[in-house]
Amino acid sequence: MTPSRGNTDSDRGFIIPIGGALSKQKNPVILEKFVNLCGGDKAVITVIPTATKTEDNGELFTSLFTGLGASDVFSIDIKKRSDCSRGDYLSKLGESTGIFISGGNQLRLSTILGGTPVAKLIRRLNADGVHVAGTSAGAAIMPEHMISGGHSGSTPTPRSVSLSPGLGLTNSIVIDQHFRQRNRLGRLLAAIAYSPFLTGVGIDENTAIFIEPDNTFSVKGSGAVTVVDPSKMNATSVSTAARNDAINITDIRLHILASGSKYDLNTHTAMVMDSGMDTPV
Amino acid sequence: MTPSRGNTDSDRGFIIPIGGALSKQKNPVILEKFVNLCGGDKAVITVIPTATKTEDNGELFTSLFTGLGASDVFSIDIKKRSDCSRGDYLSKLGESTGIFISGGNQLRLSTILGGTPVAKLIRRLNADGVHVAGTSAGAAIMPEHMISGGHSGSTPTPRSVSLSPGLGLTNSIVIDQHFRQRNRLGRLLAAIAYSPFLTGVGIDENTAIFIEPDNTFSVKGSGAVTVVDPSKMNATSVSTAARNDAINITDIRLHILASGSKYDLNTHTAMVMDSGMDTPV
Repeated sequence: MTPSRGNTDSDRGFIIPIGGALSKQKNPVILEKFVNLCGGDKAVITVIPTATKTEDNGELFTSLFTGLGASDVFSIDIKKRSDCSRGDYLSKLGESTGIFISGGNQLRLSTILGGTPVAKLIRRLNADGVHVAGTSAGAAIMPEHMISGGHSGSTPTPRSVSLSPGLGLTNSIVIDQHFRQRNRLGRLLAAIAYSPFLTGVGIDENTAIFIEPDNTFSVKGSGAVTVVDPSKMNATSVSTAARNDAINITDIRLHILASGSKYDLNTHTAMVMDSGMDTPV
Repeated sequence: MTPSRGNTDSDRGFIIPIGGALSKQKNPVILEKFVNLCGGDKAVITVIPTATKTEDNGELFTSLFTGLGASDVFSIDIKKRSDCSRGDYLSKLGESTGIFISGGNQLRLSTILGGTPVAKLIRRLNADGVHVAGTSAGAAIMPEHMISGGHSGSTPTPRSVSLSPGLGLTNSIVIDQHFRQRNRLGRLLAAIAYSPFLTGVGIDENTAIFIEPDNTFSVKGSGAVTVVDPSKMNATSVSTAARNDAINITDIRLHILASGSKYDLNTHTAMVMDSGMDTPV
């Protein structure tokens, strides 16, 4: 129940949750940056399309990454838990410089991947320097604690959110996606009220954070990222309130960060650009 | 562009903004407390039904207050600016121990009452100890700066909110109402980004704050109150961003306060009850 320490091993790969609706974007700046990070024309990218049953989801992203100049792109078509032990899939993952988890239903991801050799290998590869990106459900699954469902709305109740175990690439944050588009601040606030060691990160569609090995992140894309920092939280009644009751939460620090802004998850400090006011940039 | 000083003159009347949907409530605890503050069976209450064209709105509240034991209740049926100079209305107001402004359209209220003898008299009476309550549009109109329109959603853009002058009973806060029900955090955040000397107060339906003469308030009702405190705000891009762009706002303090909680607008401190955590109650 404490945040993971900022990983200062510079060999860890980036963690790149994306807020969804990515494939609709004409100007794929986020995926472009991901491909460049992974080595550009030397990038070897494995796509995990498991979150959806849609057959062409893997192909959609393999052609996108190929179009952006990646050297080798492969979709591993995991449909059931036993697929997660296939030697050819594990060896493809092992060759990757980047892993991309596409969107759909995060509970499908967690129930198929959870605890399997594929999940363990993704964690190990990320720790060893392989970059992992995911959009929508693929973003939600990344941390240790995943928002698996909930209600929309600005303000929280005890029932606003349900949590499940995720991939565990980080235990500093809990992620919500399609954030502005689906009015999810209430459920993110409920999530951090339940677990005030986590920083809540709400990511708009077509927007991503690039979490660097030192546990700082930068924002990229057309929307914004909402950070709810409970490190100074003084009180909450979420544990005692009735299921649909209004609850108390005091002393949350809130930041809304547009493209180009940065946030340090260790020190809980926001750094923005393009502002007429005093900034620590 | 600075907050009004906490009024420490104990003779000022309470300011009681209510988040709307009040007349649907079977158990009118908020109105009961208002009638008691105004003197109980000695209360003389004037209703201002101007925010709506609905003919029986004044009668609805006069019968509610009469049912709660008020001694004398009168609705002044202001429909146009010239009504705001009527001697009988001004003398009714002058006899009141409490004034109640019902809901509808806050721009109708501000354009009919603004700058008239009725508006001036309400301000003077409140300064002299008469309590003023208002629900929905009647709540929005109370401060110097009123939210007159905007878009719903959790996160702000420059276009999220439009502001107009209000009655000016306080310049410490800007109010939004039907808060949880209409997802209005984004527009409240935009309002305080534009005017970071104000504290944003979002009031749920069937919920009220009772602002005491010392500029502290308590929460009463079935919903919650969302306080957004920009006193430590570090940066915002609201002045430079394009109209529908995502904007930066950093270091906002956020509190969600259920019934029984208190907030000090002078020191920006929240005090909650019923919590298992450390609280300054």
